[in-house]
This record gives sequence, C-alpha cells and structure tokens, in this order.
Amino acid sequence: MHIAITGAAGFLGQRLVAQLLDRGELNGDAIRRLTLVDQTAPPAIDREGIEVQSLALDISASGALDPVLEARPDVIYHLAAVVSSAAEADLDLGMRVNFDSTRALLEGCRAYGLSRTRLIMASSVAAYGGELPSVLDDMTALHPQNSYGTQKAMSELLVNDYSRRGLVDGLVLRLPTIVIRPGRPNAAASSFASSILREPLNGEEAVCPVSTDLELFVMSPGRVVDALIHGAEVSGDSLGSFRAFMLPGITVSVAEMLEALREVAGDEALARVRHEADPRIEAIVGSWPGRFTNERARQLGFESDNNFREIVEAFLDERA
Amino acid sequence: MHIAITGAAGFLGQRLVAQLLDRGELNGDAIRRLTLVDQTAPPAIDREGIEVQSLALDISASGALDPVLEARPDVIYHLAAVVSSAAEADLDLGMRVNFDSTRALLEGCRAYGLSRTRLIMASSVAAYGGELPSVLDDMTALHPQNSYGTQKAMSELLVNDYSRRGLVDGLVLRLPTIVIRPGRPNAAASSFASSILREPLNGEEAVCPVSTDLELFVMSPGRVVDALIHGAEVSGDSLGSFRAFMLPGITVSVAEMLEALREVAGDEALARVRHEADPRIEAIVGSWPGRFTNERARQLGFESDNNFREIVEAFLDERA
Repeated sequence: MHIAITGAAGFLGQRLVAQLLDRGELNGDAIRRLTLVDQTAPPAIDREGIEVQSLALDISASGALDPVLEARPDVIYHLAAVVSSAAEADLDLGMRVNFDSTRALLEGCRAYGLSRTRLIMASSVAAYGGELPSVLDDMTALHPQNSYGTQKAMSELLVNDYSRRGLVDGLVLRLPTIVIRPGRPNAAASSFASSILREPLNGEEAVCPVSTDLELFVMSPGRVVDALIHGAEVSGDSLGSFRAFMLPGITVSVAEMLEALREVAGDEALARVRHEADPRIEAIVGSWPGRFTNERARQLGFESDNNFREIVEAFLDERA
Repeated sequence: MHIAITGAAGFLGQRLVAQLLDRGELNGDAIRRLTLVDQTAPPAIDREGIEVQSLALDISASGALDPVLEARPDVIYHLAAVVSSAAEADLDLGMRVNFDSTRALLEGCRAYGLSRTRLIMASSVAAYGGELPSVLDDMTALHPQNSYGTQKAMSELLVNDYSRRGLVDGLVLRLPTIVIRPGRPNAAASSFASSILREPLNGEEAVCPVSTDLELFVMSPGRVVDALIHGAEVSGDSLGSFRAFMLPGITVSVAEMLEALREVAGDEALARVRHEADPRIEAIVGSWPGRFTNERARQLGFESDNNFREIVEAFLDERA
C-alpha cells in the first residue's frame, strides 16, 4: 500500500500521517510507502518497514506531480489548498492551487492509468451558499458565495466526471467547520469557534464575536481524520451517482459549546470568554449552513462526533 | 449597443442574430454593431446602420477573443459549445471548448475591465443528473452524468464567481430540450423529439423510439431566443445569489406531443410516426428531468411556451 498526500505539512495532513503510521495498514493492506508533498517539505519520518518520502513541490506547476504518480500510489489524499481568505484576496492564486492543481492531478492519474487509485479530495462547507433551506441534504445545490467554495465546487465536478469515466476512483468529502483546531487565533472568520474553547482550556482569554444562539456545523479533527481513512476503504461501487457529499458534523449552538467548556473545565474557564459582538463575523458565519441530513455519508458509514463535550475532552486528552 | 456572439453560426446563434436585426435595439439602445464569431465565419450580413463583423475564430486558443473584447461589447452571448455526444467522445475537446473557452472569455472580460458587460451563457438540462426528485427547483444540485453537463456546470460556477467579484455581469440560462429543431435527424438521443413532429409535418416518416408516456421538458426555438434577449435586459441586481438557473420549459409527454401533431396536421400526419422501441434512447432520455418549478426564471420574467400545440403551429408558420 502506497499512499501519497498533498498538503501533507498542514494541520490535517500531519494528523492523517500520524494516524496512518499508528495503524500501519489501510484497507487491510500494510502501508509500505508514504509520499508526503507540500510547498515546503513535510517533516521527515523514520519508521521501520515504511518508506517515507517528503517532497517540496509546487503542485500547480505543470507536471510537478509526475514523479509521484509514476510510482502509482494506491491512495492519494489531495488536501493541498489555499484557504478561503487567501483565495478571496487573490483569484489567480486560488484558481491555480485550488482548481488547476486538482485538474492537473486528475490529468496525471489519467496519463499514468491510475484508474484504480482512490483519490480523496477535501472540499468544504464553503461550497454552499445563497438562499439555503434550514436543513440541507445531499441534493442541495452548491451556490458558493466565495471564490474558495467556487473552486472547490468546480473541482468536485471534475473529480466526479473523471471517476465516472473510469480514469480514477475519486471521492470528495466536504468538511464541516473543524473544532477544536490547535494553534493560535487567525484571520479566518471561523477562528473564534476554536478559540473560545482552546484559549480558556489553556488558561487564556478569548473573544466570542457572535451571538450565543448562532449554530455551527462542526467536526473534531479526530473524526475528520477518521473520515479520510474511511474514505480510502469505502467501496467505489457504493458511492452512487455523485462522488461528493458533506461529512456528518454535529449541529451546536455557541451556547452549547460554551456549556460544554464549563462542564469540562468549570466556571473559571468559561469566565475567560469575553463577549464582544463583531457584526462582520456574525454575518459571514451566520451565512454558513448549520444543519444537514447527511444521508449519503451515514449510509456509507462515515461517523460524526457523539456530542460536543467529547470534542472538548478529546482536545484535552490530546494536549495531555 | 455592441453585441458579440460566440457560436453565432449555429442554429440558435443564427436565430438570435435574425431576431436582433429585426428588433434593431436591445435594452432600449439601438444596435450599432454585431460581432459574430464561430469556428467558420458566420454568414455575412448587410444591414444599414449596423456594423456587422463575421469572424472565424478558435475561441479556445489563447487570446483569440482579444480583438472582440478590446472593442468592449455591451452584451456577449456565449453560445459556442461542443455538443454532449462529442464532449463524451473526446474529453479534451469538451474541456477545451466548453470550459476553457468560458474561462478565457471571463479572463478576457476581466483583463479589459468589462465589469458592466452582460455575459449570457447557454447551459443545459444535461447539467442535472443522478438521483433526482420528481420535480426540480432552483436549489436542486447539479450532479451531471456526462462530461458536457460537467463542463457546463463548472462554467456556471465560474460565471457566477466572476460576476460576484464584479469582473463581469454574467448570467447563465439552462436550456430545456429545444423542440422543434429544423434540419434532419442526428445522433443525439433527443433527436427523435423534434423528428417525430418535423418529419410528419414535412410529409415524411419518423421513428419514435420511446414509450409515449415519457415526459420531456421542452421549449420552442422562438421562446429560447426570447429568453436570450430577455437575459440581456433583466437587471443584474435582480439576479440574486446565483446567476444560473433553468429556463421555464413546459412538461409534455410524447403522447401529448403526438396529439398536438394530430390536431394541427391530422391523422395522416400522425400515421407517419412509426413506433420502434430503442431501450438505449429510452434510458438516456428517461434519465433527464421532466418537471421544474422554475421560480427564479418566472420571477425574472422569463416566459415559457403556452402549450405544445403552439410550438407545432409556430414551426409551421416559420416554415411557410
């Protein structure tokens, strides 16, 4: 089993690599080779029995992935992306990295005859937008209101078509908002969703810029990685007529998130969250869909977190 | 008013040109200039007061449309496309003509600062597919099951994003099955839908390969051209959060189509239709959606045919 990962130096990529190394196998086959690709070479890994290659590649450059594809990986995780704020700020950059790279990867799979290679791409809840119903299902149209979501939605269509034509065995998983992310607050509109938990759990102050009745559709990093692993194991025949769908997050209000924080870490932790309304962030995050039926994902065996308290506890366990 | 048209030599392009010349104005402004583009130069036109230029261009070639865009047309109709069977047979050709050309056109509009130019692209019912509801609405997802529909759906997303970013004033109209097309039967799965009317009306025999209870979602060529014209006149502000939607066709069963033929041209005409089941065509056409609510299109003032009999009568009138 040879697994290649683009965006392997990122937060999700690194967690995925760690879990793959822990497991040692994927879909019943021992992992013999990992090819880790990112703009800067992902951290080197020394693990007996597994050949690990870390490559610094600009995957949007023509033919950049040829050496990777020539080695005929069995599974490719395509996680490399320019995030939404960057794609909005620079249309060309977003098109090149988020769309052209996906197209080049698909063309590479076609050129090297990788029809049986499972390609798993990460898409996003940002692909949804516009006048949405209160509960979204697998047939809700993608009307993205940002360039990142547009580029992801276009990539989904292409992965589906190349898969339908038998040129690759593709699958696109739309990710909910990932909570709790490690690290520091950043410029992303969703940054607060991790920050209002992570900082208080670390004994620091955090700002909540939205009303507490705002609902978010979230998934823990652990469950997202589980889904990426499961995405390599689910049968292509079971994927139906469109190979992209939303992963099963859970719907939580900010109030419920804060209550879970209090339950796990006490009133003291909760008191570290300062409420300071930011209408700009409320508007952006409030436009994101909060409820999905997730029929397709559940039928295929993708699993959600059980409740938000477990997400908080898992963060503490991992930090320990 | 300067109007540029790609695919201007095609069936719809030629009808659009004829109607624009008849009207002499678009959106209240006198038409002063028409730029007609196709692979082979569209027929030359001599009309006093209107400068008409016919250009043979491969619009998928880099910069091919520069001379057209440099002249800053007020309205661009982007009708050029490779049809579904050709796009299915040749993925590269379909991607180049149906998608890359659209992207190049959008990039050209961006480069020349044509933010106020109304770009109207034709998309298709073929963009829908998969496990569809019995009645489709404006929020039904596009899960195309063919490369043509995939390329159109990707182009829709891009037109929407460039419009959202204010780089062009775009609009995509998804066309129903067009009935009655002129000409001869061809390899298209939908060919019979025109053939079972056109041939008998011309005193010739035709074959109906599908069951008479099959439903189609159809629009007459005249109404499609009306919609293209209306698409140039509708306000950009009214287009809402996604600039692509289905045009309001009418839902008719094959039995209703044949009954309209009988009403207009008698039992003699009806007797020229021979029923010879072709399960392959029944399967393809049967997978196309037959019913839409068309709320967005109707709110915006796009109009459907009144009934199928009028479609048959219009064909006879135009032939006369």
